[in-house]
Amino acid sequence: MNTFEAIIARRSYRGKYDPTPVPREHLTAIMEAGLRAPSGCNKQTTSLIAVDDPELLAQLHTVIQPPIGESAPAMICVLTRPIFAYRDKTFYKQDYAAVIENMLLAIAELGYDSCWIEGHVTDDDRIGDQMARILGAPEEYQLVAFLPVGVAAEECKRPPKKPLESRYSFNGFDM
Amino acid sequence: MNTFEAIIARRSYRGKYDPTPVPREHLTAIMEAGLRAPSGCNKQTTSLIAVDDPELLAQLHTVIQPPIGESAPAMICVLTRPIFAYRDKTFYKQDYAAVIENMLLAIAELGYDSCWIEGHVTDDDRIGDQMARILGAPEEYQLVAFLPVGVAAEECKRPPKKPLESRYSFNGFDM
Repeated sequence: MNTFEAIIARRSYRGKYDPTPVPREHLTAIMEAGLRAPSGCNKQTTSLIAVDDPELLAQLHTVIQPPIGESAPAMICVLTRPIFAYRDKTFYKQDYAAVIENMLLAIAELGYDSCWIEGHVTDDDRIGDQMARILGAPEEYQLVAFLPVGVAAEECKRPPKKPLESRYSFNGFDM
Repeated sequence: MNTFEAIIARRSYRGKYDPTPVPREHLTAIMEAGLRAPSGCNKQTTSLIAVDDPELLAQLHTVIQPPIGESAPAMICVLTRPIFAYRDKTFYKQDYAAVIENMLLAIAELGYDSCWIEGHVTDDDRIGDQMARILGAPEEYQLVAFLPVGVAAEECKRPPKKPLESRYSFNGFDM
């Protein structure tokens, strides 16, 4: 699969997963692909925790309500240190988004499915904070998203999108 | 090149570019790869403008001070509508970051170089706003970043990075 094929293959999968475990070498390859993304002022603000221990997965899923990705045999949790890159400027959101996108492509490349789950854990009920405590993350790290990882067990519908060509133009705004 | 190879090949290139033009079909493929990235609540907040007209490039580079990427035969400007995805929640930064990361990988896949230039244009002197006006973008769009695109004409040093394995762990925080 080349990069363009992986970009087309990537999809936001919200269905059930097959129980087949994801080998550690794949989880490692996915996380290392993520962490090779660039970061604002090279601050490397993103850190990752892969979870494949069934008891720990179950413990995390008790706080993820309503449930999502609970049948996946692994998940990758995304943590950030929301530090200033210079003066009062931060790029940590862009940093972790680029890490996540790299991981989603690596996941697709390896034949797995996933979904970028962020609003669900950073909303006012602060599920991410509870997940961070379960994982033993220090206070200065925020858990901002997680990706279930596994083999899809169901069909996946893709949501409708605007035509791509309605979102770009050449040599001036013409959309 | 598979996805992992493109992720490793991608680099932040700040040197001079070869004047060889970038064909329209490549600029189109890069932008469409970008716009296939997922977006928070599928709001598709990111839009793109490719510039390959030499006069327009020169006009844009008069406002990009200090200069960067000025010898590249093309650039892709990244615009966002910073709208609410739901209630008071926005994901537009994550959205455009994922679009940019896809484009950087597509650029690497096609043998070009680039660099994610954001802080330079969104800083207090608001260079992005001046670029948006030159491009005729409506008020509700913010120009938040641009990517020069072209063939590198110089050697490129990669900055030092923390070891990847110091940024992830398994089944708990251990970094």
